[in-house]
Amino acid sequence: MARYRFDISYDGTAYAGWQIQPRHRTVQQLLQEAVGQITGEKAIIHGSGRTDSGVHARKQVAHADLEGAIRPMLLRRGLNALLPADIRVLQVKRAAPDFHARRSAVGKEYRYFIWNGIIVPPFLRLYRTHVSEKLDARAMADTAAVLVGRHDFAAFTANPNRVVESTVRNLTELSVRKHGMEIVIVARADGFLYKMVRSLAGLLIRAGTGAVTPADARAILASRVRTARVPTAPPEGLFLWDVVYGEDR
Amino acid sequence: MARYRFDISYDGTAYAGWQIQPRHRTVQQLLQEAVGQITGEKAIIHGSGRTDSGVHARKQVAHADLEGAIRPMLLRRGLNALLPADIRVLQVKRAAPDFHARRSAVGKEYRYFIWNGIIVPPFLRLYRTHVSEKLDARAMADTAAVLVGRHDFAAFTANPNRVVESTVRNLTELSVRKHGMEIVIVARADGFLYKMVRSLAGLLIRAGTGAVTPADARAILASRVRTARVPTAPPEGLFLWDVVYGEDR
Repeated sequence: MARYRFDISYDGTAYAGWQIQPRHRTVQQLLQEAVGQITGEKAIIHGSGRTDSGVHARKQVAHADLEGAIRPMLLRRGLNALLPADIRVLQVKRAAPDFHARRSAVGKEYRYFIWNGIIVPPFLRLYRTHVSEKLDARAMADTAAVLVGRHDFAAFTANPNRVVESTVRNLTELSVRKHGMEIVIVARADGFLYKMVRSLAGLLIRAGTGAVTPADARAILASRVRTARVPTAPPEGLFLWDVVYGEDR
Repeated sequence: MARYRFDISYDGTAYAGWQIQPRHRTVQQLLQEAVGQITGEKAIIHGSGRTDSGVHARKQVAHADLEGAIRPMLLRRGLNALLPADIRVLQVKRAAPDFHARRSAVGKEYRYFIWNGIIVPPFLRLYRTHVSEKLDARAMADTAAVLVGRHDFAAFTANPNRVVESTVRNLTELSVRKHGMEIVIVARADGFLYKMVRSLAGLLIRAGTGAVTPADARAILASRVRTARVPTAPPEGLFLWDVVYGEDR
């Protein structure tokens, strides 16, 4: 028995997210089926976390235990031959027996891409959230700044009832950059709550239109209650960008 | 009656090319139907030229004559509301009565994008030709250089029989640049023959693997006969990049 680590990239457009669900096509399911076809084993693929329906991953990390020894390079090649082109296995390697894709992660980075112009180029339509109303990226950055730090982010999770654990997270970066028509939000934390990045993006878009000020954001954060003032931004602009592990493992 | 110019961008993945054909979904057809829905007129949309099935356009140019006067901005907005997101109308303007999208064009630029790595990122899979065998971009550039100039390109068109006009073209640029895993071929000419860019790209890919030398390319050009030595490269990496008109019209 050996543990394997998988680094995966996927276009989430055609999937009901990462996690296996009955009667839905998910990334975890296709990966698990492909591993089963190659190894003949019913291995479970554990991801670093879920991504929602339609959300992309530049880099998702997963692990699985396999009974038979197989060369990582052959496993990667076989998986990429079986999987559709919108899911790619970037790397497979043997991992330490105590490596756990979710529990060993010390941080994650998400990026949220907004196309802030009248016309989205056809080639980016699946990978950008379209906001045609002119956004003030400076105002967005000012509002983002007040949210950085270790806080209770209960006001920025979609369904606090399902969260039994702490809603405190250390948001180490929440930055906003503008390149031409494109606005990119970078969010880094030790971990993220359910729909937290899309909630932060939803608030920052409202900050960009002038509907929300840094003081409002501070008050919303302090309230620890999710209200309609924090909309959930659409999934298509969101990418799981990186999963960070302690030593590079 | 007034003539209108349309600048259009499209993702060719889902289309059987630009030109209207029975029982196929084409860009010209969708655009013509949308113009018809907005204006109530059966206008014919004339493009600067065809693009093949699966080929993309960063910028295609077309013209049409309309009986009723309509503000270009409203026409653009209406078209983008009706058309699917993989076809976008970037600009509509009134054109001179003698403006002709094909005949007034003095030049065209195409770009051909190759992903020369083992794994194509999922987000680029529809917009790059995948060549996993390592290509020598310098050798490609050296071979490209011998093809630049005014030549008879009969050896680089797919079906010379259907060409009744001259097969002489002035290829003003054929360059090869490498950025990381990506190789980009830029082709500029006063005009291109049927499948000429994909034929040039096919030869340059063979030059990149060492199968073709600059001397071979010179001999193929001089032969003026299309042979299997010039494969037609796949459509997905090809973009109609720009159409150039005399004065900016």
